[in-house]
Amino acid sequence: MRKVYLIAAGESKFGTQITKGYEELFADAFLEAMEQVENLDPNDIQEGMIGSLAFGGSQLGNMSALVADSVNLIGKPFARVENACGASGFAFRYAFYSIASGMNDIALAGGVEKMQDISKATRLYWFGVAGDIKWERLSGMTFPGNYALMATRHMHEFGTTREQITGAAVKNHKNASKNPKAQFRNQISLEKALKAPFVAYPLTVYDCCPLTDGASCAILASEEVAKKCTDELIEIVGVGAGTDHLALYQRDSLTRIEAAKKAAQQAFEMAKLTPQDIHVAEVHDCFTIAEILAYEDVGFCKKGEGGKMISEGITEVGGKIPVNTGGGLKAKGHPIGATGTGQIYEIFKQLRNEHVNQVNGAEIGLTHNVGGTGSACSVHVFKRAR
Amino acid sequence: MRKVYLIAAGESKFGTQITKGYEELFADAFLEAMEQVENLDPNDIQEGMIGSLAFGGSQLGNMSALVADSVNLIGKPFARVENACGASGFAFRYAFYSIASGMNDIALAGGVEKMQDISKATRLYWFGVAGDIKWERLSGMTFPGNYALMATRHMHEFGTTREQITGAAVKNHKNASKNPKAQFRNQISLEKALKAPFVAYPLTVYDCCPLTDGASCAILASEEVAKKCTDELIEIVGVGAGTDHLALYQRDSLTRIEAAKKAAQQAFEMAKLTPQDIHVAEVHDCFTIAEILAYEDVGFCKKGEGGKMISEGITEVGGKIPVNTGGGLKAKGHPIGATGTGQIYEIFKQLRNEHVNQVNGAEIGLTHNVGGTGSACSVHVFKRAR
Repeated sequence: MRKVYLIAAGESKFGTQITKGYEELFADAFLEAMEQVENLDPNDIQEGMIGSLAFGGSQLGNMSALVADSVNLIGKPFARVENACGASGFAFRYAFYSIASGMNDIALAGGVEKMQDISKATRLYWFGVAGDIKWERLSGMTFPGNYALMATRHMHEFGTTREQITGAAVKNHKNASKNPKAQFRNQISLEKALKAPFVAYPLTVYDCCPLTDGASCAILASEEVAKKCTDELIEIVGVGAGTDHLALYQRDSLTRIEAAKKAAQQAFEMAKLTPQDIHVAEVHDCFTIAEILAYEDVGFCKKGEGGKMISEGITEVGGKIPVNTGGGLKAKGHPIGATGTGQIYEIFKQLRNEHVNQVNGAEIGLTHNVGGTGSACSVHVFKRAR
Repeated sequence: MRKVYLIAAGESKFGTQITKGYEELFADAFLEAMEQVENLDPNDIQEGMIGSLAFGGSQLGNMSALVADSVNLIGKPFARVENACGASGFAFRYAFYSIASGMNDIALAGGVEKMQDISKATRLYWFGVAGDIKWERLSGMTFPGNYALMATRHMHEFGTTREQITGAAVKNHKNASKNPKAQFRNQISLEKALKAPFVAYPLTVYDCCPLTDGASCAILASEEVAKKCTDELIEIVGVGAGTDHLALYQRDSLTRIEAAKKAAQQAFEMAKLTPQDIHVAEVHDCFTIAEILAYEDVGFCKKGEGGKMISEGITEVGGKIPVNTGGGLKAKGHPIGATGTGQIYEIFKQLRNEHVNQVNGAEIGLTHNVGGTGSACSVHVFKRAR
């Protein structure tokens, strides 16, 4: 199999972007990516895979050609990939395949979502469409409710505390405060976050990610092309993905995202690395408890010890495995389809030594992007060649 | 690059399927595919890509895990691929990549759509979401209207007649009459079809495909696995795809689908074949004029001569290049996301010498699957190894 490299990445500002459509947001991300790389004619990009759940704005289906048009790549094959909040992780996976196979030398993976220009009622409905509708949503379950079940179960089984869970939000707001692209740049205190109104116990409003407009993209290339375009080679050394039952009631455990475990195992096996080799990671913290589950599912700690990773500062910038150094979904924002390649953008910046919260000596990074409440997950491992 | 083979295909009955959800429809298709192939444990399928525009039924987003669940493949990576009516052609493309790369040995590509269990108003809206919304739909354009523009322009430029255009429907109904899975099994006369009420001049109700519930799937495998599973090897020798502007007004020509031309050129180049080598084809006849454009875009005839292909019987079963031998979108039906792999199902049956309208000696087949009004197209070329 051919080696595949990440040669560029870009991201729009995340947040409320009333004056930009999804084409404009995607163009922002694309133009930044193009600035990252020399000797690449954008027209040499051969194909694009675009993650989005419902993209918003005027177009309601068949949006990939419009995205291609927005960056002047009409003519090239483009399609949309959807796996709820895990959409662009899978778009990236397929772009990887296209280069590993030898069919493409340069491919674009990206994502885009507009969540703010729809009515509040529709917004509340939005997250619901990514959960199980037949049995859970129609019984009144919401996305915060689903994750609250996981949180209370984790507290019950492992003694995890609210302070540990909500601590993930405090850390991620701190990281986002230095990130000019983040939706929330305010730092929060643990005390304030714990006392905030509950959305679904034990999750307060500070435990939940916001609704975000945004876009992101990554450029993948073969070894030959990568070496022409940059001296800073980042290889995609591990690729993994899995699914699980959409409805929580069908799963064996509420404190484990089986899809993530499978994805991480595959990615580490392919990379011939272990979780302890990772220098920096971006994980899917749509709710704070999700970040704690991610630590355990990826293997950064043993089952049940995710809470301690927070309370002991292990995943802070400066800790042993800094996580969500860009602010995570919680504070950087969560433009659903754009989140997966948005995580890859952060790791790209880290491995290029250009991050706003740079981790010293970061050479190996990981992304963990979840769809729904864990019905799908993709994990990617990146390694800077020295 | 590794060779990739089509080792099985399956399809649900197409039409109005009130009593089946999309999970049940997909399971119908999958079970038929599993019957086609010996020595394959379904659990050895490593990944699935599922085409769908809006799938219908209860789930409104994040449906790929439910599809995986419906065929007991939960755990494996699954994602949805969307390119309007071209969705599962692109799902098949990504499944091809996954095996060509060496990452997978066996992959599933499929599609599913429920179009009948939603209100009539919503249904009329449906096709609109696949066209350009900002400039065309909001100005009152409909999908039949878009294709009617292409038809009148073709008549104006090349002297194509209504008899030639509508003749595609007569042919396809004739083919569907022998296909037990087809939505319409009635034959129609050219006279009756021409006198039917206009939907958008020159297209009458008989020039337009129906709204269809249905599912389809294909199993792809590496050479090693394919040889273990079957003696009847069908290689995927050509793969191509392209995009074009979503809105008609942005295109250079109304009588050419540029995305299809690009897709076909790529596929033939890769296959080292020409359009004249094709023994049987399935093309995207969402409206009769689309079939005539397909002949020209794929290269079965010169520009402007598509009408003659019909009036001279060249694409009839028994003609030089039989097209849409299963009945096409027009008469077999058009369950949007399931159409691409539904076409592949027909070619699979033809190259296995098992088709209801068998083309004698068919060894090389082609599929042509369009998204929107031509904003995307994928073309695949298949060759039976002898």
